[in-house]
Amino acid sequence: MPETIFSKILRGEIPCHKVYEDQHVLAFLDIFPLSHGHTLVIPKEPAATIDQLSDEASAAIGRVLPRMTRAVLAATGAKACNILQNNGADAHQAVMHVHFHIIPKFVGEVPAGQGAGLGIGWKAGKLEGNAGVALAREIGARVQ
Amino acid sequence: MPETIFSKILRGEIPCHKVYEDQHVLAFLDIFPLSHGHTLVIPKEPAATIDQLSDEASAAIGRVLPRMTRAVLAATGAKACNILQNNGADAHQAVMHVHFHIIPKFVGEVPAGQGAGLGIGWKAGKLEGNAGVALAREIGARVQ
Repeated sequence: MPETIFSKILRGEIPCHKVYEDQHVLAFLDIFPLSHGHTLVIPKEPAATIDQLSDEASAAIGRVLPRMTRAVLAATGAKACNILQNNGADAHQAVMHVHFHIIPKFVGEVPAGQGAGLGIGWKAGKLEGNAGVALAREIGARVQ
Repeated sequence: MPETIFSKILRGEIPCHKVYEDQHVLAFLDIFPLSHGHTLVIPKEPAATIDQLSDEASAAIGRVLPRMTRAVLAATGAKACNILQNNGADAHQAVMHVHFHIIPKFVGEVPAGQGAGLGIGWKAGKLEGNAGVALAREIGARVQ
């Protein structure tokens, strides 16, 4: 587990705009926000990607997502938002410590200097039945 | 809570390519995948968006995300992936029952008929210190 800027934030060596903290989780504002209210929720347990995170630490993040999302929406007035968690540089992960983005989405005009939120490119295919049966079996067999 | 296709899947009225199930959670393949292995993880508890989901149901999803991600990566050979959870039609939510997408990300050539994964548009701004202090206070005060 390499040292990251989030390790330093967790140790208090670098300041952050904290919005929430409990035994397992820290939430703070992203200083390079995609929109007003863009918030990060991170585990205190060190793990670069979610596949390396413990069940307990991941559950603790899941547990706070509803209340964190409610708070972000209430404070910003946003009606929609995306929660995004990237694993690997190829998947747009920049800091190698697990983090969940809560990104309010605004439609129409946004105030100067603020963004509208996450841009999503959605090029969907179609899963054929036989391929689906085989793939579900392959993934299911690996859940442990 | 409106009836959705996921309600019907949960009741077994519509089939799915199931990869995992426990007391609180069902995981199955997205039949309109962005990439090979695109998997959905949903709570059995009915809720349209995550801000309406109970802490317990959300924690149960968080708890299985590491193992689900490991299984998807192992079965597909992907090295990176995005986990995405959309809230609201404006944020690209199509089915109004909470769902977490696990979307493998592939770089370079992908087999014919398969996608590379989630497209991400990332237009980041910069959060100024004073604005950050005020905004963190506004969000933090609403966490309950």
